Amino acid sequence: MKSVNIGICGLGTVGSGTFNVLARNAGLINARAGCDIKVTAVGARRDNANCDTSQVSVERDIFALTRRPDVDIVVELIGGTTTAKELVLQAIANGKHVVTANKALIAEYGNEIFAAAQKQGVCVAYEAGVAGGIPIIKALREGLSANKIEWLAGIINGTGNFILTEMRDKGRDFADVLVEAQVLGYAEADPAFDVEGTDAAHKLVILAAIAFGMPLRFDAVFTEGITEIQPEDVVYAEELGYRIKHLGIAKQREGGVELRVHPTLIPERRLIAQVNGVMNAVMVKGDAVGPTLYYGPGAGAEPTASAVIADIVDVARSIGSAAENCVSALGFASETIVDPGVLDINDIESAYYLRASVLDQPGVLSSVAQIMSQRGISIEAIIQKEPRAGASDVPLIMLTSATREKNLRAAVEEIEALPSANGPMVTIRLDSLDA
Amino acid sequence: MKSVNIGICGLGTVGSGTFNVLARNAGLINARAGCDIKVTAVGARRDNANCDTSQVSVERDIFALTRRPDVDIVVELIGGTTTAKELVLQAIANGKHVVTANKALIAEYGNEIFAAAQKQGVCVAYEAGVAGGIPIIKALREGLSANKIEWLAGIINGTGNFILTEMRDKGRDFADVLVEAQVLGYAEADPAFDVEGTDAAHKLVILAAIAFGMPLRFDAVFTEGITEIQPEDVVYAEELGYRIKHLGIAKQREGGVELRVHPTLIPERRLIAQVNGVMNAVMVKGDAVGPTLYYGPGAGAEPTASAVIADIVDVARSIGSAAENCVSALGFASETIVDPGVLDINDIESAYYLRASVLDQPGVLSSVAQIMSQRGISIEAIIQKEPRAGASDVPLIMLTSATREKNLRAAVEEIEALPSANGPMVTIRLDSLDA
Repeated sequence: MKSVNIGICGLGTVGSGTFNVLARNAGLINARAGCDIKVTAVGARRDNANCDTSQVSVERDIFALTRRPDVDIVVELIGGTTTAKELVLQAIANGKHVVTANKALIAEYGNEIFAAAQKQGVCVAYEAGVAGGIPIIKALREGLSANKIEWLAGIINGTGNFILTEMRDKGRDFADVLVEAQVLGYAEADPAFDVEGTDAAHKLVILAAIAFGMPLRFDAVFTEGITEIQPEDVVYAEELGYRIKHLGIAKQREGGVELRVHPTLIPERRLIAQVNGVMNAVMVKGDAVGPTLYYGPGAGAEPTASAVIADIVDVARSIGSAAENCVSALGFASETIVDPGVLDINDIESAYYLRASVLDQPGVLSSVAQIMSQRGISIEAIIQKEPRAGASDVPLIMLTSATREKNLRAAVEEIEALPSANGPMVTIRLDSLDA
Repeated sequence: MKSVNIGICGLGTVGSGTFNVLARNAGLINARAGCDIKVTAVGARRDNANCDTSQVSVERDIFALTRRPDVDIVVELIGGTTTAKELVLQAIANGKHVVTANKALIAEYGNEIFAAAQKQGVCVAYEAGVAGGIPIIKALREGLSANKIEWLAGIINGTGNFILTEMRDKGRDFADVLVEAQVLGYAEADPAFDVEGTDAAHKLVILAAIAFGMPLRFDAVFTEGITEIQPEDVVYAEELGYRIKHLGIAKQREGGVELRVHPTLIPERRLIAQVNGVMNAVMVKGDAVGPTLYYGPGAGAEPTASAVIADIVDVARSIGSAAENCVSALGFASETIVDPGVLDINDIESAYYLRASVLDQPGVLSSVAQIMSQRGISIEAIIQKEPRAGASDVPLIMLTSATREKNLRAAVEEIEALPSANGPMVTIRLDSLDA
C-alpha cells in the first residue's frame, strides 16, 4: 500500500484536533484513502499537552517541514498571512502538496499561491477554510459541477450568527451578547474580524471564485458588519415574517457579479433562517439542481480537523496521478478562469427594510410614498407604530421592492431631508432567497 | 484536451434532462472537467421530443452502446433491475465506465456490480441514486472521510414527505393527500414504492454502505410505510413539540448496525424537521465533525441530471489514472469492507410515541405506568384527553424513554390486554436526533 507522509505546522486548536483525529481514526481513514497516511513530523514552537507527539519528529522551526524528504503534504495550521504565506510558498517551491485551513491566506493570496502550485505540479487544498466541517468546497467544486451557479448565500461566521440568534431569542442588544460571546470563547478579544464581517468576506470570496470560475477578488467584496443592528429592528423584522442574518451573498448578474457581506432580512420560512447559534450553512442555487443547502459546525477543533483530513485524504489519494486527473484549485481549468468584474455596491439590486423616525402628523406617509414612487420603488409592506408616551415621533417601517442600491440611497436621502423626518434612517438589505 | 465520450441509455425524464443540461452547460462543464465531454450516442426505444438528438447516433438497441468504441462512459437511465442490470454488467464487461441513477439496481445488486467493475478496472458512479441533486454520496464518501459516522437520518423520499407535510399543514388525511400527489405527478399510479418505504430503503442501504464501509444489505433493512399515519397523531405529536417524518435511519451500535425506514417523531426545533414538501435532506453525525445536514430537491429531471453529470465529470476526469488514485465504489478499499451485521428490528433501541384508547375510569393510568415501569421504560411525557361527547374511552398519549424494541412491544401487548384498554395501540418510533 502506498505510504503518504504528513507534516503538520501549528499545534494550536486546529492543529492538535487534526493530529488527534488522524490518530484516533487512522484505520478508518487509511481504508478510505486506500493508502497509509502517517504524520511524520510536527512543526510547532511549543508542545501542546493535548497531543502525544512522542512518535513523530517535532521541529521548532516550522520551515524545516518544507524541506524534509519524509514529508509529502505540508499542513499549514498556523494562521495569519505573513509567515503562513511564506511557509506555503516555500513548501510548494520544494514540491510539497499543501493543505490549509487558512481562509485569509487563500482569499488574499490564493491567486498567487494557486499559480505557484500549478507550476510545480502540486495541490493546494483548503476545504477547512470555509464553513469549518461542512464539505462545501467539495460540494460546489465537484458535486454541483453540472450547474451554472446563479447565486449563493451563507451564514459563514458562527460568532456573528450566535450574536444575532441571542438578540432575537432573548431580545438582548448587540454589545451585551458580544461580551458573552467573548466569555464563551466564540469571539476574539478583538472581535472586529467576526462582527465587522472580514472573516465572512474571506470565505465569500473563496466560495464565489469556485462557484463562478473567477479569480479571488478580496479587494472587491463589500463588507458591512452587525454592530449597528438594533433590537427593535430584529423585532420589526419578525413582525413582518423575517429574520435578520449576517449573510455572505454572491450573485451572477448582467455586467458582473455581486460580492457582499451584510446583515440581511430573510423570510423566516426559509430553512437557512432556522440556522441558529454558532452553526453555519450555505445555500447554493444552481440552474439545474435548484436550491440546495449545506449545514454544520463552522468552527472548532474537530469539525475543522474533519475538513483538513478530508483534504489530506484527497491529496494523498491523488499522489502519483497526472494533473489532468486531479480537481484543480478552483475547480476550473486555470485557462478558463475569467474575471467577470465585481459590481460596486451602488449597482447591486436588492429589496430593503427601512426604518424612519418621523413626526406623528398627517401627510408624512404620503410624502414618503411619493418619493419612493418617483424612483420606481414599490412599498411592499409597511408598519406604522403609535408614538411612545410623550414622544412626538413614530417609527415608520417599510419593505421595498428590489431596486438598484444607488436609487434606494437617493430616495433615503430625500426622505431624510423631509421636514417631518427625524434623524437618519435605518437601512437593511432584504433577500427573499427565492429559488 | 482529452476527449471523453458518453452514451446515454434511456431518454425518459432523467435521460432527457441529462442530455439537455450537458448541451446547455457544455462550456462550463468542460472547463470544470478539464476535458471535452461529448455525448456521442443515445440508446432509446423511441425519441423524446424534448431532446434534439440530430447530432448524435441514436441506437434503438440500448445494448449497442455497450459495444461502441466511441463510448467511454455508459450512462444507465432506464431504471428497473432486470434489463438495467444486464446492461450495466455488459458495459463493465466491455470495459466501459458506468454512471447510473438507479437506486434499486445499486441497493439490490451493487455488491455484484462493484466487484465486476473492480475486476475490469472501471468506475461505477451512482450519486443520482440517493436524494436526487444533493451531492450526499460525495459528502459522505469524501467530504467526511475523517469521521467515524455514528448515525445518519434522512428524508429521502419526496412523495412521502409531501404527503406528511400536507397532513400536518392542512390537517388532511393520508388517502386524500395521496390522490393529490398522484394528480401532481409526484406519486406513481401504484404508489407503494414511495409510501410503503421501499424507495427510501433502497437509498438508506446505499448511504449506510458508504457511511460504515459495509456491503449493501437491502435484504436486512426494516421498512415501515406511512400509510397508517392518522391525522390525530400528527396533531398530538405537534402538541408535544414534534413532527412526524418518514426517515431512513442507519446507526452504528454495539453488535451491529440498525437499518430502518419508518415514520419517526423528531423534535420540531431540529433543522431537518423544517424540511417540507417534496424536498429531501440527510443529517449525518460524524465523530469529528458533529452534526451536518444536506438539503435539496430529491427528484425531478434537472436535479437528478445535476447528480448524473457530476458523476460523469468525476469519471471523465479520472480516465487514465490508476485505480489507487480513484475513489472506490463505496469509498473504502474493497478489502476493508466488512459486514458488521444488521440488527433485527426487535433489537434496535428507540424512544417511542404511544397512543392507547382506554376507558375513562380511575386506575387506568396507574396500570399502564406500572407495566412500563416493570420493564424499565420511563414515561417522558403524557397527554390524557377528555372523552369526546358520548364516548366512554379516551386517548392516552405517551412518550417513552429509549428501550429495546422487543421490550417495548412486550409492554404494548400487556397494555393492550388490560380490561380498560380498547383496541390496539398506535406505536411510532421517536428520535431526538441529538448531536
